[in-house]
Amino acid sequence: MRITVLAGGIGAARFLRGLRAAVPDADVTVIGNTGDDITLHGLRICPDLDTVMYTLGGGIHEGQGWGREGETFAVQEELAAYGAGPDWMHLGDRDIATHLIRTRMLDAGYPLSAVTAALCERWKPGVELVPMSDDRVETHVVLEGRAVHFQEWWLAMRAAEPAQGFVSIGADTARPAPGVLDAIAGADVVLLPPSNPVVSIGAILAVPGIRDAVARTPAPVVGLSPIVGGAPVRGMADACLTAIGVETSAAGVGRHYGARAEGGLLDGWLVDTADAGTEVPGLPVLDVPLLMTSVQLTAAMATAALDLAARVR
Amino acid sequence: MRITVLAGGIGAARFLRGLRAAVPDADVTVIGNTGDDITLHGLRICPDLDTVMYTLGGGIHEGQGWGREGETFAVQEELAAYGAGPDWMHLGDRDIATHLIRTRMLDAGYPLSAVTAALCERWKPGVELVPMSDDRVETHVVLEGRAVHFQEWWLAMRAAEPAQGFVSIGADTARPAPGVLDAIAGADVVLLPPSNPVVSIGAILAVPGIRDAVARTPAPVVGLSPIVGGAPVRGMADACLTAIGVETSAAGVGRHYGARAEGGLLDGWLVDTADAGTEVPGLPVLDVPLLMTSVQLTAAMATAALDLAARVR
Repeated sequence: MRITVLAGGIGAARFLRGLRAAVPDADVTVIGNTGDDITLHGLRICPDLDTVMYTLGGGIHEGQGWGREGETFAVQEELAAYGAGPDWMHLGDRDIATHLIRTRMLDAGYPLSAVTAALCERWKPGVELVPMSDDRVETHVVLEGRAVHFQEWWLAMRAAEPAQGFVSIGADTARPAPGVLDAIAGADVVLLPPSNPVVSIGAILAVPGIRDAVARTPAPVVGLSPIVGGAPVRGMADACLTAIGVETSAAGVGRHYGARAEGGLLDGWLVDTADAGTEVPGLPVLDVPLLMTSVQLTAAMATAALDLAARVR
Repeated sequence: MRITVLAGGIGAARFLRGLRAAVPDADVTVIGNTGDDITLHGLRICPDLDTVMYTLGGGIHEGQGWGREGETFAVQEELAAYGAGPDWMHLGDRDIATHLIRTRMLDAGYPLSAVTAALCERWKPGVELVPMSDDRVETHVVLEGRAVHFQEWWLAMRAAEPAQGFVSIGADTARPAPGVLDAIAGADVVLLPPSNPVVSIGAILAVPGIRDAVARTPAPVVGLSPIVGGAPVRGMADACLTAIGVETSAAGVGRHYGARAEGGLLDGWLVDTADAGTEVPGLPVLDVPLLMTSVQLTAAMATAALDLAARVR
């Protein structure tokens, strides 16, 4: 079975771990969000790709869901001693090694997809991890009278200042990375995991050609709600949804993606049991527990998503 | 008093600490060797500049004489886990912060001299530290049938394979960094500390214009022997001297620099008491203890060098 997943960071990474446990023999391609990418201290940082890679490769800090286990921060402390900002994104020492290799390979002319494949040779995530694009695309947040990089809004400001919208800088001319469109068109199932619908899944869909590929794939497309009981399971997706006028609810996000039959993207929508009764026009909605507190529970979620896909096929 | 010092790494750094203690009010300009510089993992590394900066700034690992005190190696270990070589130059985490800032500033277009000044704003070495050149100059070692970067020969091979010579790549078109020639021409005293005469002092003198500036300065030029009792005080200078046909002795190095009166560089030569009786044609030779085992003893060496300079003026 060929499964293609559009993935953000922590939520997607945990979902993928469950998916891999549910169908260990499946051929999984992960199209990773690179809209959160940023260059700090000359290092090219791809938070979502790394979170997926570290999580599936067994190197993630389980407690926080991002970064490396057993991480230290000597380089960051030293940069601070030099007064070299910014200090709102704490780069761990181990993590910096990943960024050094990535930056060096990019500088040498390798596309991000090749760099990601090279890094995955060590981590062996058990999926094919492909960035949404080899071109630089960065999500910026429109605030009152200015715009800041998504990471600054998310990490430094904790999304406290209301966003008026998001700009995907570079998306207009970006092309999907090699293999991305084929992975969507040739999949048996396409899944939208419980990632941030705006700055993760939305950023991927903003790369010209990807939204269209999802809308046209012969494969069933099933999504899992990142909103449970009217709030994000984790993170601050509500701040993103509010900014684009989408209600922070399982129904709101389902309607935002929309049914393929009505010009949207989905053939099925999975919500948490807390949201049983959710209705989205034109879409079969199934409720199952959507809390990823263990690999087993997450595998059950993944199985439910695949079952729903089989039903709507 | 304006003192200009041509400096390599550890030996020069320790000498400079003594010099600063001996004449705290002097205006000291240090022309640092950058021939040992290397780019590893995309990071621009200037070992000699950093050794001087850390030593005078109080950040040096006293025991080993290079690198930072309390250093950790998480990034290097992680690079090794990725299989990202080479592994023969162990970069410490704190040290990497320095290299990150330097690399970022160089990439942004700042010359190395400006970068060095910026780094010194933190360390406050109490001297003006200027690289010999803003242009890239790198010492490579000629071996049987091939040439390798000096650092590879020095660190990976421990200078065990005999050098047939040294090539200062880039030196032919390099220009002295801003201020270098003026610091030599306008000094009251020019000192050659007990640095490696070949790959440290020799690399500085290989930048067109610098040797000439030393030969023509109205200031007295006094050198201190890095060879005591026929052996280098530390390091493997003997392997370098042998490669260029210079005897590893206080007399050999003195003759290598030569008396200004006879077309050389020196007006005075300081050797260790173990080498009392050393004769160099045309040059006053003074013997004093040249072991830099404490700042006090080193200050006495520096005072002796300045006294000799005053005598030969």
